[in-house]
Amino acid sequence: MSDLDSTRVAVVGASGYSGAELIRILLSHELAELVCVTSRAESGRKLSEVFPRFRGVERAEAIKFIEPTIDLIIGSGAEVVFLALPHGVAAEYAGPLVDSGLKVIDLSADFRISDPEVYADFYEADHPDPDRLSDAVYGLPEIRPNEIAESKLVASPGCYPTSIILPLIPILQEGLIDDSSIHVVSMSGTSGAGKKADAALLFAECNESVRPYSVPKHRHLSEIEQELSLAAGNNVTISFTPVLVPVTAGICSIIYATSRDGSRNDDVKGALENKYSEAPFVRLLGESSPPDTKNVTQTNFIDISWSYDKRSDRFILMSAEDNLIKGASGQAIQSFNLMCGFDQTTGLVI
Amino acid sequence: MSDLDSTRVAVVGASGYSGAELIRILLSHELAELVCVTSRAESGRKLSEVFPRFRGVERAEAIKFIEPTIDLIIGSGAEVVFLALPHGVAAEYAGPLVDSGLKVIDLSADFRISDPEVYADFYEADHPDPDRLSDAVYGLPEIRPNEIAESKLVASPGCYPTSIILPLIPILQEGLIDDSSIHVVSMSGTSGAGKKADAALLFAECNESVRPYSVPKHRHLSEIEQELSLAAGNNVTISFTPVLVPVTAGICSIIYATSRDGSRNDDVKGALENKYSEAPFVRLLGESSPPDTKNVTQTNFIDISWSYDKRSDRFILMSAEDNLIKGASGQAIQSFNLMCGFDQTTGLVI
Amino acid sequence: MSDLDSTRVAVVGASGYSGAELIRILLSHELAELVCVTSRAESGRKLSEVFPRFRGVERAEAIKFIEPTIDLIIGSGAEVVFLALPHGVAAEYAGPLVDSGLKVIDLSADFRISDPEVYADFYEADHPDPDRLSDAVYGLPEIRPNEIAESKLVASPGCYPTSIILPLIPILQEGLIDDSSIHVVSMSGTSGAGKKADAALLFAECNESVRPYSVPKHRHLSEIEQELSLAAGNNVTISFTPVLVPVTAGICSIIYATSRDGSRNDDVKGALENKYSEAPFVRLLGESSPPDTKNVTQTNFIDISWSYDKRSDRFILMSAEDNLIKGASGQAIQSFNLMCGFDQTTGLVI
Amino acid sequence: MSDLDSTRVAVVGASGYSGAELIRILLSHELAELVCVTSRAESGRKLSEVFPRFRGVERAEAIKFIEPTIDLIIGSGAEVVFLALPHGVAAEYAGPLVDSGLKVIDLSADFRISDPEVYADFYEADHPDPDRLSDAVYGLPEIRPNEIAESKLVASPGCYPTSIILPLIPILQEGLIDDSSIHVVSMSGTSGAGKKADAALLFAECNESVRPYSVPKHRHLSEIEQELSLAAGNNVTISFTPVLVPVTAGICSIIYATSRDGSRNDDVKGALENKYSEAPFVRLLGESSPPDTKNVTQTNFIDISWSYDKRSDRFILMSAEDNLIKGASGQAIQSFNLMCGFDQTTGLVI
Repeated sequence: MSDLDSTRVAVVGASGYSGAELIRILLSHELAELVCVTSRAESGRKLSEVFPRFRGVERAEAIKFIEPTIDLIIGSGAEVVFLALPHGVAAEYAGPLVDSGLKVIDLSADFRISDPEVYADFYEADHPDPDRLSDAVYGLPEIRPNEIAESKLVASPGCYPTSIILPLIPILQEGLIDDSSIHVVSMSGTSGAGKKADAALLFAECNESVRPYSVPKHRHLSEIEQELSLAAGNNVTISFTPVLVPVTAGICSIIYATSRDGSRNDDVKGALENKYSEAPFVRLLGESSPPDTKNVTQTNFIDISWSYDKRSDRFILMSAEDNLIKGASGQAIQSFNLMCGFDQTTGLVI
Repeated sequence: MSDLDSTRVAVVGASGYSGAELIRILLSHELAELVCVTSRAESGRKLSEVFPRFRGVERAEAIKFIEPTIDLIIGSGAEVVFLALPHGVAAEYAGPLVDSGLKVIDLSADFRISDPEVYADFYEADHPDPDRLSDAVYGLPEIRPNEIAESKLVASPGCYPTSIILPLIPILQEGLIDDSSIHVVSMSGTSGAGKKADAALLFAECNESVRPYSVPKHRHLSEIEQELSLAAGNNVTISFTPVLVPVTAGICSIIYATSRDGSRNDDVKGALENKYSEAPFVRLLGESSPPDTKNVTQTNFIDISWSYDKRSDRFILMSAEDNLIKGASGQAIQSFNLMCGFDQTTGLVI
Repeated sequence: MSDLDSTRVAVVGASGYSGAELIRILLSHELAELVCVTSRAESGRKLSEVFPRFRGVERAEAIKFIEPTIDLIIGSGAEVVFLALPHGVAAEYAGPLVDSGLKVIDLSADFRISDPEVYADFYEADHPDPDRLSDAVYGLPEIRPNEIAESKLVASPGCYPTSIILPLIPILQEGLIDDSSIHVVSMSGTSGAGKKADAALLFAECNESVRPYSVPKHRHLSEIEQELSLAAGNNVTISFTPVLVPVTAGICSIIYATSRDGSRNDDVKGALENKYSEAPFVRLLGESSPPDTKNVTQTNFIDISWSYDKRSDRFILMSAEDNLIKGASGQAIQSFNLMCGFDQTTGLVI
Repeated sequence: MSDLDSTRVAVVGASGYSGAELIRILLSHELAELVCVTSRAESGRKLSEVFPRFRGVERAEAIKFIEPTIDLIIGSGAEVVFLALPHGVAAEYAGPLVDSGLKVIDLSADFRISDPEVYADFYEADHPDPDRLSDAVYGLPEIRPNEIAESKLVASPGCYPTSIILPLIPILQEGLIDDSSIHVVSMSGTSGAGKKADAALLFAECNESVRPYSVPKHRHLSEIEQELSLAAGNNVTISFTPVLVPVTAGICSIIYATSRDGSRNDDVKGALENKYSEAPFVRLLGESSPPDTKNVTQTNFIDISWSYDKRSDRFILMSAEDNLIKGASGQAIQSFNLMCGFDQTTGLVI
């Protein structure tokens, strides 16, 4: 199937939704060998017992959860470690593992923000390992594939940020919009809140409910603005409102931005096509062809559309992705592929 | 129960979702006597046969659908007629009924837009009865109760417009925001699309789907901007994106607007409290207390919250309503109550 | 509105789903005055703060949760107390309250089973107050209205039992089916599991999930078989499988039973019509007209249909109810009305 | 990847839900080459235009829908043809295609019933091609792999039947249950009703709805009883009630049957393990471990559990499958693999 050797991987904190998606992808990834899954709560149990979906899957039946200690992870022989842990906790693992020569892909926020003061402002705690921030790469494979390929520590982006940054970066880079005019509303499925026993996330509370939250300052603003500022070449501040809607998976973002210098739909189309012509997971739907999350769930695609409103001289950018895949685990696998020298799509196509 | 006489009412076009909600409310309204329900498709069938929810409800068991002819409606003895018909069709009924001395509450768009050219622009057809537009009152009971009380033709507002206009009017009237800075995203349940056999609205298409549509120029913009312009005292153009989400009922609107002259949360709070202190169906949730559609469905309440984001100098206004009740039938009943001299809440509390 | 005096009521354990429904009904019940709501967790908070649906409802704004002590409940002046507590806990309140002269309507299982050994078998604990069992009435208003009217302690039936017992009692009483042939599958919404922080009840776990549970011996079998045995005149054992389906509210039961002595649809129809001709909340849909839970949710109705299958010589009985209303709080209000001498439908019609 | 040559396939009637699932699987099937997809309604449109999920999938972008004529299908070079057509229509294609030397896998009911009189009874029409019935194989890969492998015309089983037959066959074959005691309730997602514009299937009608239908004689009874009778060695009549529940995909069946000759859980377990030890898609969950449809959706697995209820001396068998995959398209691919000499799991694992 390939002359490439497969890579041994570990998933730390594997009992949540992102962890389960990572494992699902890795179990059928032809160049990854899953050698270690950890979970404090599930230690000792078989993977297929904790995740009944994986029963009968040969590669899954052989694996048991172990305790998440640095020694056990290193001892498993893993070459690359995915951290699916809460922020603050991930940093406790990333440093020692990298220092021991392993590569780390962190799905938490710990290494996404290059400025520790911004981290402290948004996460209300001092950064646990500020000296290592400069070693980390913010892992958007469409934007900086080479840095990811050479990195030992990838900070995989958040779900909301991915859906907002990817449509905007090419447009900001080409100066097509007023960078002070960005307003975003993002709707997310409940799996984004994680698998935690919280009465506010019960079916009977989320069903038939549409619920904005974390206004006006959601934590993801920190990484969104960091990346948009890099693209614009100056500080960008945006408005962002997340809304919980009753789907299990999927994020849809609506992004408003005012046209600059007479830019129109064709300019936006050109910028996006130019930037993403080689990006296998970005699908450009065309003008005024809104995305639908159900077309991207269970895939690593992000669908993007745009519409110029001449009445207001504003663009409406729209995107849809699976929050657990392109917004988390699938994107982390893209980075993994790049870090291992594999084709970016390995294990991810349909 | 009351010294007031009850009023005889008809519901024309009663087989859809708004019609069913109107009937539900009217069946338990102590001062309304439902004497006529029409539906071309259901003519001859009992109300309780078409709407099994109403089986066993004494007042419902006695009523059958009839053909929607002007003569039959007038012949029923109805004093007030609700039109739950498509736009374009409603106007065919409104004129003759008003001319015959009946009062009309129209739930369609036909008499909402005072300027027939704007109607033609947004509805892509000449207005069917332009001379009558000046007689119609745009029926927001919180904004113009007296005009409604004295009107013979009330144009009851659309679902999206209600959720957007009510939070903004007091704030625009007091000049607290830059009226060129308004950006809106509204999420709606699927009942808003009506009870029509359309494959795009099947459960299997809407479930696990988040789907923007009608960008960049949804028809409701016409009435939203008309009312906001009246409040602001000059022409207001906004951005508006509707999104279909998998709930049956409910609309949640997220509205961004830039602060003007240093206005802050307290100013917004003051403007809303001032305007709605006597409005029984407007609930002000307070600063940064986002609404949840599940708290308003099945009721005529609209919940409103606000949050000033100092980072962007913008306000985030949020509202939630039941699209079929406060956004359609309940609001129409409010107008009915005003037109009949009843208390505004009759038939509508809890 | 009525010459009857209103009755002062308390709801103990009012923070869950059944409690909220009880409160919702009581707030608009013209002959009930809600004087006391208790909740250990919410003590001191306003009703409208805990249940945002009740904001702006005048009668709700005046009420605060208090601690659930016997003294405080009695001190509130309540004449009738609803217990919406877990089984085992309810019995600690029922006795002292009844002994103090208050009437009690218990929504838990504590006084439903007349035989304490059956209770111990199904609930895996000794009955907490066996001497009082003989004073309690199993509160099916359609079956024993007079006993309820005269009782001081009503054990309000469970949600599944109500949906199964009401269709079967008339048919068993008339001997139309083989009482050893009953097989039941009941599908329930997730609100039936209560408002508890349990990861298995998260939206992301219940959505797109159909999940049988508690096989083969769900606790509700104890009361179902008790009541069916009374109707049949001998011991009846049935099969029963509950299934969790992704709706918030609603139970649908499918009941198979073999025809006896050549009984057919008309016999079943006759038995049901005969028994329920005066029952305002039982709606008989007719032969082979299956019910749909969406027609009964938010109401106190139970819809019943039947179909004789000549191929198997069996009847298929089908019922639908709102698990929180006819299956819990609405039914308890029916009993309350009977105990107070009110019309059975007070506060409950549409 | 394999020394086997790939097989050219056509999908006729590919615009519905089963057709889309077939295409999804075939697009990533390493030994199938999709050369022809037909749809009268979508003829001329690209596959990725009709199914936006397939945008960006290289193999999909190259394919357009064509008209469903026999000549065009044969002309496409297809060796195996899947018919995803309504019953009655499928038979018009099957005969000519088989006579032209192509192999046919029919997902409709047309060749499932070996007795044309039974077909006429259940489908209320004469069988369109009765002489060919004896050539067709009822395509349960777990039960008759060899006949499928050698067949030119496979009648792929219905969704409900698969979920009911697979648990029961081993148990009937070993005589562990009374074959006159079978009672079934099956809950299905709405995709089973197909992608047709029917108001009863709208989101607003199916959401928050649990709805039995087609009582007492659903068409699938014909094939269920045919296969159970073969297993039992005598005529078997069962009771079966299908229930529509608000999920997109998934079927869960609850099957009651009375123990015979003292059989217990271990006997059932033994029979199932014995029969399915080599069946890659049957997962035996163990005693009283109910299945959950969410663990099988998007897969070709069927999960089976069992529970002996000593109180009633009955077994409760439970199964879960994805109605569109194991219940339709995935199972058809299993047959395809067998017919082509491929491993049964090709294109189907995880």
